[in-house]
Amino acid sequence: MCVATGDIMTDDKQQCHVDLEPIGRREIVEPGTTILAATQSSGVELVATCGGMGTCGNCRIRLEKGELTSLTLIETGKLSTAEIGAGYRLACQAEILSDVRIDIPPESLTALQRLQIEGLSVSITPDPLVLPIDLNLPQPTLTDIRSDEARLKASLAEHGFSEIDVSVPVLANGVEKLRETGWSARFGLRQKSTSATHKELIAILPVQSPLLGLAIDIGTTKLAAYLIDLSTGATLVKTGTMNPQIAYGEDVVSRIAYANNNEAGRQILQSRLVKSINSLIRELCSTAHTAPEQIVEVVAVGNTAMHHLFVGLPVRQLGEAPYVATVSDSCELRAREVGLQVSPGAMLYLPPNIAGYVGADHVAMLLASSLGQASRSILALDIGTNTEITLAYGGRLICCSCASGPAFEGAHIRDGMRAVPGAIERVRFANDHFQVHTIGDTLPVGICGSGILDAIAEAFAAGIIDRRGVPRKEHPLIAELNGTVAVRLVPASATKHGRDIIMTRADVNEIQLAKAAIRAGVEILLAESEIDSTDLDEIIVAGAFGTYLNIGSAISSGLLPELPLEQYHQVGNAAGLGAQHLLISRSARASAEKMARTIEYIELTTHASFTDTFTQSLYF
Amino acid sequence: MCVATGDIMTDDKQQCHVDLEPIGRREIVEPGTTILAATQSSGVELVATCGGMGTCGNCRIRLEKGELTSLTLIETGKLSTAEIGAGYRLACQAEILSDVRIDIPPESLTALQRLQIEGLSVSITPDPLVLPIDLNLPQPTLTDIRSDEARLKASLAEHGFSEIDVSVPVLANGVEKLRETGWSARFGLRQKSTSATHKELIAILPVQSPLLGLAIDIGTTKLAAYLIDLSTGATLVKTGTMNPQIAYGEDVVSRIAYANNNEAGRQILQSRLVKSINSLIRELCSTAHTAPEQIVEVVAVGNTAMHHLFVGLPVRQLGEAPYVATVSDSCELRAREVGLQVSPGAMLYLPPNIAGYVGADHVAMLLASSLGQASRSILALDIGTNTEITLAYGGRLICCSCASGPAFEGAHIRDGMRAVPGAIERVRFANDHFQVHTIGDTLPVGICGSGILDAIAEAFAAGIIDRRGVPRKEHPLIAELNGTVAVRLVPASATKHGRDIIMTRADVNEIQLAKAAIRAGVEILLAESEIDSTDLDEIIVAGAFGTYLNIGSAISSGLLPELPLEQYHQVGNAAGLGAQHLLISRSARASAEKMARTIEYIELTTHASFTDTFTQSLYF
Repeated sequence: MCVATGDIMTDDKQQCHVDLEPIGRREIVEPGTTILAATQSSGVELVATCGGMGTCGNCRIRLEKGELTSLTLIETGKLSTAEIGAGYRLACQAEILSDVRIDIPPESLTALQRLQIEGLSVSITPDPLVLPIDLNLPQPTLTDIRSDEARLKASLAEHGFSEIDVSVPVLANGVEKLRETGWSARFGLRQKSTSATHKELIAILPVQSPLLGLAIDIGTTKLAAYLIDLSTGATLVKTGTMNPQIAYGEDVVSRIAYANNNEAGRQILQSRLVKSINSLIRELCSTAHTAPEQIVEVVAVGNTAMHHLFVGLPVRQLGEAPYVATVSDSCELRAREVGLQVSPGAMLYLPPNIAGYVGADHVAMLLASSLGQASRSILALDIGTNTEITLAYGGRLICCSCASGPAFEGAHIRDGMRAVPGAIERVRFANDHFQVHTIGDTLPVGICGSGILDAIAEAFAAGIIDRRGVPRKEHPLIAELNGTVAVRLVPASATKHGRDIIMTRADVNEIQLAKAAIRAGVEILLAESEIDSTDLDEIIVAGAFGTYLNIGSAISSGLLPELPLEQYHQVGNAAGLGAQHLLISRSARASAEKMARTIEYIELTTHASFTDTFTQSLYF
Repeated sequence: MCVATGDIMTDDKQQCHVDLEPIGRREIVEPGTTILAATQSSGVELVATCGGMGTCGNCRIRLEKGELTSLTLIETGKLSTAEIGAGYRLACQAEILSDVRIDIPPESLTALQRLQIEGLSVSITPDPLVLPIDLNLPQPTLTDIRSDEARLKASLAEHGFSEIDVSVPVLANGVEKLRETGWSARFGLRQKSTSATHKELIAILPVQSPLLGLAIDIGTTKLAAYLIDLSTGATLVKTGTMNPQIAYGEDVVSRIAYANNNEAGRQILQSRLVKSINSLIRELCSTAHTAPEQIVEVVAVGNTAMHHLFVGLPVRQLGEAPYVATVSDSCELRAREVGLQVSPGAMLYLPPNIAGYVGADHVAMLLASSLGQASRSILALDIGTNTEITLAYGGRLICCSCASGPAFEGAHIRDGMRAVPGAIERVRFANDHFQVHTIGDTLPVGICGSGILDAIAEAFAAGIIDRRGVPRKEHPLIAELNGTVAVRLVPASATKHGRDIIMTRADVNEIQLAKAAIRAGVEILLAESEIDSTDLDEIIVAGAFGTYLNIGSAISSGLLPELPLEQYHQVGNAAGLGAQHLLISRSARASAEKMARTIEYIELTTHASFTDTFTQSLYF
C-alpha cells in the first residue's frame, strides 16, 4: 500500500506519506512509525503530556484516510465508543501502515494554547553591563600599518579605556563593516568581573545605533522573550510561543526521560528550543525594525532542567535521587555558543539555580517581587508541575520545592486538558447543577487546572464530595463508571464531543495529592520560621496556573492558607520581569547572586515532618 | 553524451561522471565544469600555483576518454606539441562536455610533495599552562545535594585551588564521566592571566591519564602537527600533510583572491584547513594510542594570512595596500570555536603577528632560534613566496618582509615544479654539460627551486649567462625559443616526458627578481643596524626551500651574503619547534610576546633606499 522507492531490483524499502491536516504538512515515514513520531519529525507539536507513554491520552487525532495498526488496550481505555467510531486514535499508539491523512483537533495542538508574557511591572534604574562609545578611527596608510586591533585599542585608550579585551569573533564580524563605514562605528564595551577598569569589546555597530538586550523566560510550557533598549531599560517589544520541547513530553520528567532514552535526545531538545528562540528573536527585531546583530546581551531564566537543556548540560541526574543540579552558580557564556543568532560577541547570562528543582526562574521571580529586600513577611509560590515556594521572614529567605505533579496542567485527569480553547476554566455549583465557563466560550471538550480546582471546591461546598474527597454516592450528579464513582460536571448533550465531562474519584485524588504537596511545603516553611500563616503580610502567586487560579477555590480546597483575599497578589510571569531586570541592571545581578547564596533550601523529601504534614493536607 | 538524471518529463539537467585516475575518485558535475573545479570539489588537490588563472601551467592532466572543450590559447602556449598530442590539457582551462576519464600525473598532484616536519631540537623546561590534579569527590546523597559544580569547587578549594572558573562546555562533557567513574577524575586546571591564583577548569579526564597538547604549524604549503605530553614536554608523535587550501591557490595572494572573489570563500578555506588538521589529530592520537579528548591545549602558528584564515578573520585587507593585519596581539580562543576536535574546554593560543606579511610563524621561528636572547649578531631568514628576515644585533631586533614571489617554489618558471618526485633538485656543470639529480632518482620532468638556483649559479660560473643574467648566445647549450634564448639543461631524450628541460631568459629573470628582493631586505636591515655582513656571527636559514637550498649556490648567485659556510645554519621547520615551545612553556609565550612588542618592523616598499638596493642586487 505504501509506495516503493529506489530500484525495485536492489531495494524495496517502503515509505508512507502522512498528510497532517488542517495544518497542511506532509511527512514521509517508514511503515510502523507512530503518528506521534511522524508529527514530531515534521515539527508539528502535539500535546503529549506523558511524553508518548500512553498514560495521558492527550494526543488524540482522527484518521481521515488510510490504514493504521489496530486499537491498543490503552486506546480503548482512553477513548469513548463515540470517539472510536469517529476515527479518533492516540498518536502515540497508532502506527502508520499506508499513506494516511490525519486530522489534528485544536485541543491536541500545543500552538493554540493561551500565552502569558505579562507580569509585574516594577521599573528599575538601568545600569547595564554593556555601554556604547562612538569613535572615528584613523585609517591605515602606508606609514600607519598598525593592525586593526592595535588601531582600535589605541583609540579606545585615548578615550580612557586602556584595559580592553578583544575577541576574534567580534573582529571577524566587525572589521569589514569598519572599512565600509570609513572607520566610524559604535563600539559596545562590556564590564569584566575582574576589575572595574577591565572591559571587553563585545560589538562593532553602526554609529548611534541602539545597544539592545534580550530577556528570555524558558518555561517548561511557554517561552517569553523581551527586546529591551539597554540604555533606557525600555521594553521595545515582547512576544511568546510554546516551548517546542512539548512535542517530546509535556513536563520536566518526561523531557528528562526523552533526553535519557533517545540517542542525541539532549541535542534534539536543545536545538528545537534554540530554533524557537531564534524565531522569536527575528520576530522581535522585525517588529522593532532592528537587526539581531544589535542584541549585545542576553539573559535567560528557566527552571533547572530548562536551564541545563538550554545550555547543553546533562539532565539525567535531575531525574534520579538525590536530584542534583550540574550548575548552581550563575554562568556566562557566549550567546553564539548555544546557537543564538545575535551579535557574535554577545554574552548570555543565566542567574544561579538554587537546587535541582528550584531553578534560576524562581530566583528571577523572587528578584522581580523584591523578596530579597522585603522587611515584611511574604510567601511567594510559583505553582506548576513542580511548585517552588519561598518564605521571606525577618530578613531570612527559605525555600522548598514540591512535586505537585501535572494535575493542575490538566494531566492525569480523565477529562483534563491544558488551558486551550474548549477547556472549562471556571465552575460554579448553583441550582443543583454545575455551571461552567470555557476558554473561548465554546462548547466544553475538557477541563483545565483552574476549572478542576473550582469543581472540587464547589463539589465539596455542595456536599457532593466529603472532606476526604470521597463522592457521596447518593447525590444525583454521581454516576458509576467501571466500578468507581464519578461526579458528572457536564452532560454529554452539552459538550462538543458528545460525551459526559466527569470528575472521577481518581481525578479528585490527583488534585488532593497536588494541593497537599504544595500546602505541606507552605506549612513546613512556616514551621521552620516559627510563624503562623496569619503572620503573613502578603502571598504572591506567580506562573500561568497561578494567574488564572480562583484564589477563593484555592483557599476552600485547602491549597492555600486562609487569609483575606486582598493579601493575595497574582503576579503572572514574574520570572520574565526578573529576567528583564537582570538584563539591564548589574545591581540586580548582584542581588540575585546574593539571594541564591543566602537562601536556605529545605529538602522536603527528607524532612522529618513532611509525611505527617502532607497527610494532614490531603483533607479538604 | 552525458546521462540525464531525474524524471525526463520534468527535468533534463545533464550530469557528467568524471573519473580521476590513478586515484580512483569519481565526481559528478554539470557539463561546462572545468576539470580543476571537478578535482577541487572531489577533494583531490591539484597543483594550481596561480589559483586557476591559467598563468602557471602547473595543473597538467591527461584526457584518457571522453570529450572536453577545445584547447585554449593559454593551453597552446603552455603545452608542447608532444604533450598536446599525448592528450595533455590544463585542468583550469578544459571544460567537461561528457563523461570523462582523466589521468593526473604525479607532478600535478600536491599530495606527493616532500614533507618537512623536522626542525631544530632545542629542549626547554616544561612550564605548561594546564596542570593536572587527581581528586576523588564525595558522591551526592539525599543529605548532600550540592550541584556538581559546587561539589567540585569545594573539593578543589580543599586542595588549595579556591579561585576556579568552570565553564559550561567542560561540565557538559565531563560530569557524566564523573558519575561513571564513581567521582574520581583527573582535572586539568589552566592558569588565567588575571592573577597567579586564578585558574580555569579546562578538562575532566580519567585519573592519571596524560594531559596532552597539540602544536600546529600552518604553512601556506604544508601542515605539521605535533602531539606533546604537557608534563614532560616530550613529542609523542609528529605528522604532516599538504595544506588543502592549495587546491584554491598555491600562494597567499591567490588564496586571498579566492576568499574575496567567491561566496563563502573564506569559510571554505577555513573549513578545509580545519578538516585536515582534525585528520592529523586523529592520526596522531591513533598512533599514540590516545584520544583527542586528552588534548587540553593547542598552539598554532602560521603567517598572518594563514593565521587569519584559520580563526575566521577577514583577509581582504592583507591583499590591498597598506597590507595590515586584523589581529597583531597574541590571541586565545576555545579550540572548539574554530572547529578543532579536541577536549571541549581546550584553549587555542596563537602567538602575535608582527605585520601583514610577518606573521606568528616568524615569531615562533625566532623563538626556537633563541634570537630574542642572542648577544651575538644573527640574521634569520624564512625563505618562501614571502621571505621574512630578522636581524638580531646589540640587543635590538629588526625585521622586514620581502615579496620574493613563488619562483623558488617552482612557479613562474617554464619547466618549474614543486619539490615532488621527478623534480631536479641539484644541478652541476661539468664536462661541458649539466648533470642533474632528481627527487626520487627518476627521469626528470621539471626543476624545483633549489635546482634552478643551482642551475643559475653553475651557468654563471661556466660563463653561459653573464652577471646581468643574459645568456651568451654563442654557447652550444643555448637554444632559440619563440624569439628568445634559453639554456638547455636536459635534452628531450633524457627526460621522462620527452621534451627538453630548459631555463629561459624569463626564468633567470624570475629568480633574479626573487633573489634581489631577499638580498635587498638583508642589506637594508644591515644598513639600518649600521653593520656589515662580515659582522654577522651566524645566518639561520629556515623553511622548506631553505633546508634543501645549496648555500654555495645561494652565495654565488648573490642571494645570500658571502660568509664562511660554517656560519650558515639550515634549521628546517623552526616555526614548528617554536610552536612546541609555546605549547609547553609559559615563559616561551612571554618571550614571544615581548619579542613581538619590541621588534622593529621596516616596511621595505616605502623605504628610501629600497629601489637602489634592489636594483644593485639584481646582478649575479
